[in-house]
Amino acid sequence: MGSYSDLNTPERILLGPGPSMVPPQVLRAMAHPVMGHLDPQFLTVMNEVQDLLRYVFQTKNPLTLPISGTGSAAMEACIANFIEPGDRILIGVNGYFGERLCDMASRYGAVVQRLDKPWGEAFDPQEIEDALRKQPAKILALVHAETSTGALTPVDGMAEIAHKHGALLLVDCVTSLGGIPLKIDEWDIDIAYSCSQKCLSCPPGLGPLTVGARAREALHKRKTKVPNFYLDLSMIERYWGEEHAYHHTAPISMNFALREALRLVQDEGLENRYKRHQQNANSLWKGLEDIGLKMFVPLQHRLPTLTVVTIPEGVDEADVRKRLLNEYNIEIASGFGMLKGKVWRIGLMGYSSRQENIDLLVSALARILAK
Amino acid sequence: MGSYSDLNTPERILLGPGPSMVPPQVLRAMAHPVMGHLDPQFLTVMNEVQDLLRYVFQTKNPLTLPISGTGSAAMEACIANFIEPGDRILIGVNGYFGERLCDMASRYGAVVQRLDKPWGEAFDPQEIEDALRKQPAKILALVHAETSTGALTPVDGMAEIAHKHGALLLVDCVTSLGGIPLKIDEWDIDIAYSCSQKCLSCPPGLGPLTVGARAREALHKRKTKVPNFYLDLSMIERYWGEEHAYHHTAPISMNFALREALRLVQDEGLENRYKRHQQNANSLWKGLEDIGLKMFVPLQHRLPTLTVVTIPEGVDEADVRKRLLNEYNIEIASGFGMLKGKVWRIGLMGYSSRQENIDLLVSALARILAK
Repeated sequence: MGSYSDLNTPERILLGPGPSMVPPQVLRAMAHPVMGHLDPQFLTVMNEVQDLLRYVFQTKNPLTLPISGTGSAAMEACIANFIEPGDRILIGVNGYFGERLCDMASRYGAVVQRLDKPWGEAFDPQEIEDALRKQPAKILALVHAETSTGALTPVDGMAEIAHKHGALLLVDCVTSLGGIPLKIDEWDIDIAYSCSQKCLSCPPGLGPLTVGARAREALHKRKTKVPNFYLDLSMIERYWGEEHAYHHTAPISMNFALREALRLVQDEGLENRYKRHQQNANSLWKGLEDIGLKMFVPLQHRLPTLTVVTIPEGVDEADVRKRLLNEYNIEIASGFGMLKGKVWRIGLMGYSSRQENIDLLVSALARILAK
Repeated sequence: MGSYSDLNTPERILLGPGPSMVPPQVLRAMAHPVMGHLDPQFLTVMNEVQDLLRYVFQTKNPLTLPISGTGSAAMEACIANFIEPGDRILIGVNGYFGERLCDMASRYGAVVQRLDKPWGEAFDPQEIEDALRKQPAKILALVHAETSTGALTPVDGMAEIAHKHGALLLVDCVTSLGGIPLKIDEWDIDIAYSCSQKCLSCPPGLGPLTVGARAREALHKRKTKVPNFYLDLSMIERYWGEEHAYHHTAPISMNFALREALRLVQDEGLENRYKRHQQNANSLWKGLEDIGLKMFVPLQHRLPTLTVVTIPEGVDEADVRKRLLNEYNIEIASGFGMLKGKVWRIGLMGYSSRQENIDLLVSALARILAK
């Protein structure tokens, strides 16, 4: 085996579905000297991270913390802790992450009821209510912002329907938290999870989640042990709570980064941040339309944080992405699953959501597509 | 909620059971701008991390990679992927991490056979062979270096016994990898896992593991789906392999850090590193004995990476640790489980294993204990 030299990586303009670009303050926070995970000063950092997460989730839920893994780990924590073998879960599937929820839930022994819809469309309250009326479930799971399609399913009002039929509402907020309005308490969402690397602009590696009183009670009433040690919330909440009972060693540096990223969200203010994401999305959509491109999702359900663009006839989509990366240092993403080869996915999330990035991308795309 | 200022954390001398201190080069690598997880340049980093992990594990196993979670996640990956309901596992329990293996294995439906031994003692090949002869198992799990007790169980020769009785050998190398000799291929170990934050001196957040051909075949022959999505190695190996099939988003910055930490191990050379850890441990033991302290583990089975010290009669152990932290900025750890209140745990791992740290600790302890 060879001998390696220092890390030498380029600085990219990250306009894919995540990770988004990370502000220099967050990179600097991550480079702070590491401390022990039970050091009183680190316990303060943990409390601050939880307090700031409650701010971005707009909740008072005590059980609000980052899982020590990526968004996929937080997603699995939300399934593993609330499903017992034989429990019914109704999952809205209108993209890849709905599919993934079905896969995960079935691994934990759930009876999965799929509610399918073409990729790119959104669910409305009526069809959810109809499905629950036909067959009640313990959990109703919806993807707020589908990262695979760019479609937004409004979740305000869904909790009322879920609760009426005795279900808990679980929401995937991976591509919405910190970028578009999401009000856990006001909308009465029981369980929600997200990731660090999208609209929060922290590097990937942590998975924020929040659990409300109703769901917490269900967790404490489980008849069986959670069949997953690492993601067992009854242990994790004791580690993050007053007791600080050892469960694993928190990723210290990643928590430094998350604290700083969340602090920057608080500095900007959530409302300002939502406005910035929406305004920059409008600007991107206009820019792309001006050079003849079409958006995949109708305006009504289109996510501002992740724009999915239909690839024009006769264009080699992979070549365009390759040229963007190699000639302009810009990353955008391909479609996947049933949208593979049909769309590009362009993220404007967190620190990446800036007018200068839009201008760079649109002019680069115009030049590449003209040839 | 209040408004927060910049992160302001102290620089500690970390002499606990991990995290150990992180070299400035590793902190700098972690602060590199983030890039996409499918960026060709990040794929290169992934390949380099795997190559360097094979060096520290002393293996050619293709399936060698860091789990995107802490050492506890890597431990669980090694259980979740190799246990199917009803499988027998023989676990050597001589400390807390043996207990944890029992807990995890039972969550996955294993029939757990415990081989108990007092905390602080080590297993010898004969008693393992006797246990397997009495009742064969699919997996024999041993903790190489028990972080809760400071005892080392030699694992050279254990694979032969396991294989003779049809078992795979699984080894916990959390407190040994990169600090004391560990030869996966030469010792024919089938499955091994570790963490990033101990003898490798990378921050916590990644869990290196390696799987040999025999175990990989067992993985591919499973009859049931792995009941854990995030840790499903058949998916993770496709993400880390040639195909780079999407499974989750790798923690980019943590992988930058791990690459640099491993590169520093390679620069020093494994043999030199083992020697440094042993010499510094000898120096610490002498220093502690000189001030009247006694080691908990007999020399024969004493770990050089983590020294467990018996607390002298009449000493308020928590007060001593508090004074070390507040007056000298030094972290050491308490005992836990059945050693709570009875011992201190002092780590000399990776970048923390330096003579100046030993001198600082011993003189500070002498001063505190004299009063």
